[in-house]
Amino acid sequence: MKANLLKPVLPGVWKVHLGQTPEAFTPVNLRVVPAQEERLGEMPLLSNPPFDLTAIRATKQKRGLLVELALGREEVYGFGLQLKSFRQSGKKKMIRVNSDPISDTGDSHAPVPFYVTSSGYGVLVDTSRYANFYVGAHQAPEAPAVNPVTSTVAFSATGTDALYGSSARTARSVVVDIPHVEGVDVYIFGGPTMLEAVRRYILFSGGGALPPLWGLGIWYRTFGKFNQEQVMALARQLREARIPCDVLGLEPGWQSHAYSCSYHWNPEAFATPASMISELRDLDFEINLWEHAFVHPSSPVYRDMLPLASPSVAVWNGLIPDFSLPQAREIFARHHEKEFINKGITGFKLDECDNSDFISYPWSFPEYTDFPGGMDGEQMHSLFGTLYAQTIWDAFRKNNVRTLSQVRAGHALSAPLPFVLYSDLYDQTDFLRGVVNSGFCGQLWSPEVRQCESVEDLVRRLQMVVFSPQALINAWMVPLTPWRQFDYTKNHAGELLADWQEIEAKVRELFEFRMQLIPYLYSAFADYHFSGIPVCRPLVLDYSQDSETFNIDNQFMLGRNLMVAPMLTGQKSRRIYLPEGEWVSYADKKHFKGRQWIEMEADLYTIPLFVKYNTLLPLAAPMQAIGNDPKFLLTVKVFGSGDIAPFRLFADDGATYSYEKGHYGWVELSWDTQQGGSSKNKKTVPTGRYDIKNWEVVPIVSSV
Amino acid sequence: MKANLLKPVLPGVWKVHLGQTPEAFTPVNLRVVPAQEERLGEMPLLSNPPFDLTAIRATKQKRGLLVELALGREEVYGFGLQLKSFRQSGKKKMIRVNSDPISDTGDSHAPVPFYVTSSGYGVLVDTSRYANFYVGAHQAPEAPAVNPVTSTVAFSATGTDALYGSSARTARSVVVDIPHVEGVDVYIFGGPTMLEAVRRYILFSGGGALPPLWGLGIWYRTFGKFNQEQVMALARQLREARIPCDVLGLEPGWQSHAYSCSYHWNPEAFATPASMISELRDLDFEINLWEHAFVHPSSPVYRDMLPLASPSVAVWNGLIPDFSLPQAREIFARHHEKEFINKGITGFKLDECDNSDFISYPWSFPEYTDFPGGMDGEQMHSLFGTLYAQTIWDAFRKNNVRTLSQVRAGHALSAPLPFVLYSDLYDQTDFLRGVVNSGFCGQLWSPEVRQCESVEDLVRRLQMVVFSPQALINAWMVPLTPWRQFDYTKNHAGELLADWQEIEAKVRELFEFRMQLIPYLYSAFADYHFSGIPVCRPLVLDYSQDSETFNIDNQFMLGRNLMVAPMLTGQKSRRIYLPEGEWVSYADKKHFKGRQWIEMEADLYTIPLFVKYNTLLPLAAPMQAIGNDPKFLLTVKVFGSGDIAPFRLFADDGATYSYEKGHYGWVELSWDTQQGGSSKNKKTVPTGRYDIKNWEVVPIVSSV
Repeated sequence: MKANLLKPVLPGVWKVHLGQTPEAFTPVNLRVVPAQEERLGEMPLLSNPPFDLTAIRATKQKRGLLVELALGREEVYGFGLQLKSFRQSGKKKMIRVNSDPISDTGDSHAPVPFYVTSSGYGVLVDTSRYANFYVGAHQAPEAPAVNPVTSTVAFSATGTDALYGSSARTARSVVVDIPHVEGVDVYIFGGPTMLEAVRRYILFSGGGALPPLWGLGIWYRTFGKFNQEQVMALARQLREARIPCDVLGLEPGWQSHAYSCSYHWNPEAFATPASMISELRDLDFEINLWEHAFVHPSSPVYRDMLPLASPSVAVWNGLIPDFSLPQAREIFARHHEKEFINKGITGFKLDECDNSDFISYPWSFPEYTDFPGGMDGEQMHSLFGTLYAQTIWDAFRKNNVRTLSQVRAGHALSAPLPFVLYSDLYDQTDFLRGVVNSGFCGQLWSPEVRQCESVEDLVRRLQMVVFSPQALINAWMVPLTPWRQFDYTKNHAGELLADWQEIEAKVRELFEFRMQLIPYLYSAFADYHFSGIPVCRPLVLDYSQDSETFNIDNQFMLGRNLMVAPMLTGQKSRRIYLPEGEWVSYADKKHFKGRQWIEMEADLYTIPLFVKYNTLLPLAAPMQAIGNDPKFLLTVKVFGSGDIAPFRLFADDGATYSYEKGHYGWVELSWDTQQGGSSKNKKTVPTGRYDIKNWEVVPIVSSV
Repeated sequence: MKANLLKPVLPGVWKVHLGQTPEAFTPVNLRVVPAQEERLGEMPLLSNPPFDLTAIRATKQKRGLLVELALGREEVYGFGLQLKSFRQSGKKKMIRVNSDPISDTGDSHAPVPFYVTSSGYGVLVDTSRYANFYVGAHQAPEAPAVNPVTSTVAFSATGTDALYGSSARTARSVVVDIPHVEGVDVYIFGGPTMLEAVRRYILFSGGGALPPLWGLGIWYRTFGKFNQEQVMALARQLREARIPCDVLGLEPGWQSHAYSCSYHWNPEAFATPASMISELRDLDFEINLWEHAFVHPSSPVYRDMLPLASPSVAVWNGLIPDFSLPQAREIFARHHEKEFINKGITGFKLDECDNSDFISYPWSFPEYTDFPGGMDGEQMHSLFGTLYAQTIWDAFRKNNVRTLSQVRAGHALSAPLPFVLYSDLYDQTDFLRGVVNSGFCGQLWSPEVRQCESVEDLVRRLQMVVFSPQALINAWMVPLTPWRQFDYTKNHAGELLADWQEIEAKVRELFEFRMQLIPYLYSAFADYHFSGIPVCRPLVLDYSQDSETFNIDNQFMLGRNLMVAPMLTGQKSRRIYLPEGEWVSYADKKHFKGRQWIEMEADLYTIPLFVKYNTLLPLAAPMQAIGNDPKFLLTVKVFGSGDIAPFRLFADDGATYSYEKGHYGWVELSWDTQQGGSSKNKKTVPTGRYDIKNWEVVPIVSSV
């Protein structure tokens, strides 16, 4: 091995340059947030790369550059928000941003040219091209048979699945086919464990996003045709009905023009936005505004943006800003700052920034689009979501306001951006898989609840979303809250469900559980930010030595001590894997040994949730909304009777970037079987965020 | 306009060279069948190109070459076998061969970089790259509004369809984004009508395929697990049940190894193939053998093919022959000739020669694959089906045996190949659209019948297939004929339908109607071959002045005088457009004026079929099979009472390539209201192919 390859560029991170000069517009070259070098240095020291980096081969082809990396028997995961599959070994994955990724091709709202293997290392190919990763998919021909045609194979397939499933998947390399480039940099992330490899990638990305405290509450996007009065009526109804809610989202109708966007209040439907904002804030609501990046000719920023946008292509008649140009970012951010952030808006939904490859009509810009900064449409599609989110985040940062927002596209290195991904797709299995897969690449994903087919469907979807990074109900298509009427037509007709009050009570209970979890979740986000530990994680990340976890795409770790196994609509029971250790079922307090599969029944209002045995779970008294400088009244639940692991609660102002200057601290909870519970502050700023009301030893029922 | 652009390269065909040197491996450069120059010269003389060819622009980009062609208000069609859409204006179409084209993206088994417009010209971009055609899809930004933000647009969408349907589609150019190339040739086909533009493209391709007469009969692919005795039992059963059938197809189990292929009889299941072939031929069955092109190490041709195949990638452990090399074609053809064609096999099903982009596991070769002749995997995918079919066809031509075969991939210029396309997709609407769209680009497509959900589903699918170029029942998944049991499980259990005899009688009737149509269809194929008139054609090709036809993707012209409007499963009635002229409904002999929409009911055993008023329809007495040198006993049906158009029947030996040396003729049928029917032979070889039994004036019922 060459000496220079032995030396990491950052602790535990190696860089291999292949071919000629790499392209200028790559995720690493365009990054705004720097790598967390110090945090990387705190991780286990690795003196050697995880494999022989000199064995990485690159071949220049007419079509681009071919990169080949050896692969052993390990399993491969990652490639971003893959809704259609989990384990990627044997597959081809095209890293292409797509608004409607209906097939298992790699296409995604947020594909990432990064993978991680079960033997504990990660690989990032730093390109914004639509690279194809062939993960052990193809092998070379073998030598001729010694005795041809003597063997006989009975053909037994009677269906196409049997035919194509028999494909040989024994190749021992990952081949990356990168179009149009002459050279590329590849980054290798050491472990030694799989989780540590992912953590290094996330810290290399800049660390995970830390949302404002209110971002962890309940989100509700209001009906697209609502005017100001109707939004206010809904807001008051939520408070009167004691439905916890922190964020109200306004859909395109708030603007004077959409699609494309004017970024200007609609003077008819929203005549006095300032007073609406003020009334909503008095009710402890945060306000999120929908938009996309395509600038309508009637927009105040159109004239300034014209020379900074693609000169040749418009989308919905709107400009496509070149957000790789600081000046374009500045113009866009300044307008948002002046018109919205300074007036009390704390978040945006950045829609339509992906691409339109599977839609019959290609609404988004083509790959051949030219931009004044030099990118083409292919490169821009890969990075558009990230650059757009960065632009909006810049405006918030300048005003020392934290946001949790939404974005429909992402790519590599987007972990630090406080923007949650979402999709127009809606399959429940896919949405759950999204939660699970998002852990591999430092992404946040919301399995948002929209239309529902039944009360069961509504409840199962709500249960899934309250255990996700963003508990979002997106009711943009219906005027009534979906728990009062799930049926689209009846909802529009104003017809309430016969038993809406009972259902609403159950929904309230569920949302209250989310509110109880906020201190726990906030600490998980702090782990994400400071240590790169994903909030929601596939089991295989934490238990990569256990091959039973290799295919589990419907259970996930939530923070340090919880494991969630959501039930889907139609299920009365489900199989659940309990990994190494011991577990307590939250609902019925049953104790389980680990390393076993169990079949668990759960009625409609129960979601299978497991707590690690011998851990602490702090739960807050539920609030209607987080509001300003909240105080959490905690009940610390003690699960177990032996050597209880301590738990750290994160505290800061929850709303500004002061934590970046060290204004934060931790409350360490610990439990001694003899002496009971105690808490210790470590430089907690502000003090008094957590008030420990009581400690509760959970009575455990023994089980199989 | 430059003088050299005014001069066509062939009558009515212009060539425009753009950029630097084009690639070596393009459809035109690799063509085997030459253009039909003489036939092109017989078409209307065009002294000028259909538009200003100097206005075609090309821009070199890093990603490839961008070609821009002006577009007026005309509608655009084509791009090959598009199963998911019909009118392509406003869309993006990627010309990429794909085994599972589930979305309207352009991906297809047989995409073609050719389009034709309603103003009567066609455009072929001669590339084997995955070109993207943006058909009037994107426009440039406009100037800023004079008074920004004064306008207000009420946002009214409450669903995603409404959102994305509003995309502006006003761009006035077709942009072709061709990756990786420096230069390209573009061919322009004049009309002046749309049909004539398509005819010029088909004659440029070499003229349409002329199948052997037996190819127009009924095809039946037998259960994949059948052995020789079971195949024979089925063959005898079909004859005993008097189910017309000309071709039996054997599935992969006939080989000693598949997947990949040995091209060698399975000595256990098919111990004495020679006697089986002989017995089947005695029963007037032609035999078609399934295969794909990937050569298994146990195959007799493996060793010879090894240096002529991709050195780096195998598929299902089999070699990928480089069929661009004459030597590879020769080895493959020689084996087929010696082992199969010389032993009585008259056709093959060339499976799996497309690509696997939407399948979870990429069984086919990747785009980066290298081939000894110099092509890469992207180019090879585009041309693999064509080159493979050409290879097999070579073997037949060398033995002066005509074939009609099957192939699962195609591209440009494949009209002369006697290979019919098919798909693993199965949506009825898509299958019908395939029949319609195949007319734009000189393709043959079979909406084959496989599994069925009900008797209705079976019958509706059979009705569609008997009016298609290839009447194929593909029962590879089930042992019993589907009309004895459509249900997969019950079929495997040997359980007959209670009323199978009635259903079989109806199916027999339907197949007999197909057999009656053979002289008419054969003449339509002769028109396809000699004049480039597609056998199945969208209405818009014949009636492009009538904008009502612009979106009709579920009716089609069949030959010169018939129009078919199939009913789909679940339909009790359907809307049908009757274009200019007058029409007679075949079932109830009702007379209709043209240029109107009608709603037509049809019971399960009726398919809406219309005959042009004042035309002749020759129908043959149905046979069980075409057999050797058939004689057709004709009833010529006279539809109308005025100036009846004459009809030409094509005649040749129906089995060899003698027609290429002029050994063919026409029988001209004409009808005089006073004097009755008469027929005139024009150099008919052989004489006596058609025996006109009687002339029947169809009693027409007047209607709306």
